[in-house]
Amino acid sequence: MDIESLSHENGGPFTRGWGWLKAMPEKLWAKAVDVAKKMKKLGEDDPRRIIHSLKVGLAINLVSLVIYIKPLSHDFRFENNAIWAVMTVTLVLEFSVGATLGKGLNRMLATLSGGALGVGVHCLATLLGTIGQPIVIGVFALMIAAAVTFVRFVPAMKARYDYGLLIFILTFCMISISSYGKQELHVMIKMAIQRLVTIILGSFVAIVICICICPVWIGENLHNLAATNMEKLGNFLEGFGGEYFNIPEEGLSNMDDKSFLQGYKSVLTSKDTEETMANLARWELWNSRFGFRHPWKQYLKIGALSRECAYKVDVLNSYLNSKIQTPSEFQSKIQEPCAKICSESGKALKEIAAELKKMTRTTSVNPHIVNSKMIVENLKSLLNTTWLWENANLQETVPTAAVVLIVMDIVPYIEKISEAIQELAFLARFKRVDARVYPI
Amino acid sequence: MDIESLSHENGGPFTRGWGWLKAMPEKLWAKAVDVAKKMKKLGEDDPRRIIHSLKVGLAINLVSLVIYIKPLSHDFRFENNAIWAVMTVTLVLEFSVGATLGKGLNRMLATLSGGALGVGVHCLATLLGTIGQPIVIGVFALMIAAAVTFVRFVPAMKARYDYGLLIFILTFCMISISSYGKQELHVMIKMAIQRLVTIILGSFVAIVICICICPVWIGENLHNLAATNMEKLGNFLEGFGGEYFNIPEEGLSNMDDKSFLQGYKSVLTSKDTEETMANLARWELWNSRFGFRHPWKQYLKIGALSRECAYKVDVLNSYLNSKIQTPSEFQSKIQEPCAKICSESGKALKEIAAELKKMTRTTSVNPHIVNSKMIVENLKSLLNTTWLWENANLQETVPTAAVVLIVMDIVPYIEKISEAIQELAFLARFKRVDARVYPI
Repeated sequence: MDIESLSHENGGPFTRGWGWLKAMPEKLWAKAVDVAKKMKKLGEDDPRRIIHSLKVGLAINLVSLVIYIKPLSHDFRFENNAIWAVMTVTLVLEFSVGATLGKGLNRMLATLSGGALGVGVHCLATLLGTIGQPIVIGVFALMIAAAVTFVRFVPAMKARYDYGLLIFILTFCMISISSYGKQELHVMIKMAIQRLVTIILGSFVAIVICICICPVWIGENLHNLAATNMEKLGNFLEGFGGEYFNIPEEGLSNMDDKSFLQGYKSVLTSKDTEETMANLARWELWNSRFGFRHPWKQYLKIGALSRECAYKVDVLNSYLNSKIQTPSEFQSKIQEPCAKICSESGKALKEIAAELKKMTRTTSVNPHIVNSKMIVENLKSLLNTTWLWENANLQETVPTAAVVLIVMDIVPYIEKISEAIQELAFLARFKRVDARVYPI
Repeated sequence: MDIESLSHENGGPFTRGWGWLKAMPEKLWAKAVDVAKKMKKLGEDDPRRIIHSLKVGLAINLVSLVIYIKPLSHDFRFENNAIWAVMTVTLVLEFSVGATLGKGLNRMLATLSGGALGVGVHCLATLLGTIGQPIVIGVFALMIAAAVTFVRFVPAMKARYDYGLLIFILTFCMISISSYGKQELHVMIKMAIQRLVTIILGSFVAIVICICICPVWIGENLHNLAATNMEKLGNFLEGFGGEYFNIPEEGLSNMDDKSFLQGYKSVLTSKDTEETMANLARWELWNSRFGFRHPWKQYLKIGALSRECAYKVDVLNSYLNSKIQTPSEFQSKIQEPCAKICSESGKALKEIAAELKKMTRTTSVNPHIVNSKMIVENLKSLLNTTWLWENANLQETVPTAAVVLIVMDIVPYIEKISEAIQELAFLARFKRVDARVYPI
């Protein structure tokens, strides 16, 4: 450290403070510009986010009209209940229709059942006098809260009814505990019903706004995600052969950016997203595109197969670091069928993805899969011939052979994916299209 | 279908209904037993779940004492606010300390800021008379709700402040909208402060109960998860060599169950879990075991490396289907070093995991990693010799060579994991232990 900077650093708290202050507006401005840019990008990436934000504001205003239009001015109690509608609309209105419906239905049912149980416990407790009452309520609150909290750990319940169970505990405790000291059952019941009505109103407004204004169907997102994931894997495979063996492929000459080689990475970690989406999609009973009882579970099966495929693709990707510049004799013999398998597999996946997107169903087996299976068989017998290995440069042969094996190993997975998609098409009754022309 | 069963199936609605009814109690009983068994298993798997359930019941009772002890009988308003404490405790008390602290702090801060803004807007709106008031409130509610909802989409905000942002909208709307028609500012402020106090009380009770009675530190869970994942990978690698080459290993002869070969599967999909845990762990500022500012981000790096390793392990696992029965000449030459790399890598991972669990730090490089790197070098030069490949049965040689390549490829990842762990140990100031004895 030189002396100048040392003296500068020790320039007294005032000098340092002044320097910091002087730099402050600039830093703040830079930070603000940065945040604004990020926000803009967030909106541009998915404009539905902006629409959703406005929908929330609109829904709150809509439901608050209940308070404005019916200003039973100083009737404190009514207003206090009407505010539950505002609260409900804020809590229930989610980005996707599935999440909104799930939360809305959960909230309504939980309020109804929790409130009813609370009134029941209140009736029981009033029979036992002023001292017995809080004890009975306390014991019930302890038991019910503990039991329901434990039920929330059950995976099947957590997936669909977590919010409802929480609201059940909440409503039950609120009704039973706040009833302490009040004897008038009819006042309590009136209050409970008023609250239920406002919660139904809030949920209803949230659901209507969510469905009627640019709805985001999570089921559609899941459907598209499944297709996009397959497309990404297809893009990788289609490009991999040419990339690894350094073959300039037709039509791909202008693909200078290698982003298609990285796209598959998101497939590796898609499990939790897919499960959440499938759980929410089940609430979307009346989605016009998919109809009633769409087989959402099948998407999880497809997702699992896509991931299995992606793990293999990830290993293939690691071999790209040692890609071939000038092919040896072994490689030149093997590269054509191997690249062909890759491109056929990739095309198969992309075609399956396109069919899935269009929601059509073909009875014929995908010709690209047939092709790639055929080439795999030929390649297997080629690998078993001795002359192939003569004069092979072994240092280069082994990695290439490993790549070939993995590529051959991917084909059965693609067949499985295709079968899973056909099963989905059958279960979901996708419309049939005529057998296509075979481009063999 | 034979005639008898046909006549039975057509036995009239009454017969069928009676049969269904008769079978009903049995079915219900079987179902109940099944559910009870599942519940029991859920509790046995993790008894902390039972404790958490009881904690929720206890916390609700504790906070409801506010109502019982201070029965300002018919002061409806106070009770109505006290119930907010019950609500808060139910909503805030989560399974882990991190989640509870996060929710509690979010809720308190959001109520304070949202309430203050609500009062401010109310003051502004009252200046504008009866007609202007709802318009001003409506415009503000729309703008603020939309803006804050949009902010909830920012990934960094969503990870830590999602709940707070939601409560901010909620509180702001409740205060500003419910204030309509009321002119007395002091009543409003009193109400807002009362509510804030009850929410602080509820959050405080939830946090105290969560921390004082058998606390579940999510940071500890994350720490253990990182170690367990490495252990699982280590178990696989340690066993893989013997399994693939059919070598009866010492000390492993009694491992009849092959569960160690499947354990790694959970590592493949651990990303989202780890991210959620790391986000929650950051709230646990005063965890006695890890201290202040523990580098939680480092766990994500370790997790990513473990997953990279797991993808390779998954491909290795697929080769177990074609494992070797009687080794060829090539295989018998290669199997010993390859199995040795596997077992050394596995041991290295398990040793690193054990060190991580004990939170100790060694300055020396793991001797198993040194060993396996050495064997990899030897194996590489062995693979480059021509005599190795003479008389090789090619059908068997290629898969084995591929396995060898992947095994060799895993070693650098294990070194990276080890480095990441050392970085963590340095950042988190794990205690040093003396350099160990090298068992080379």
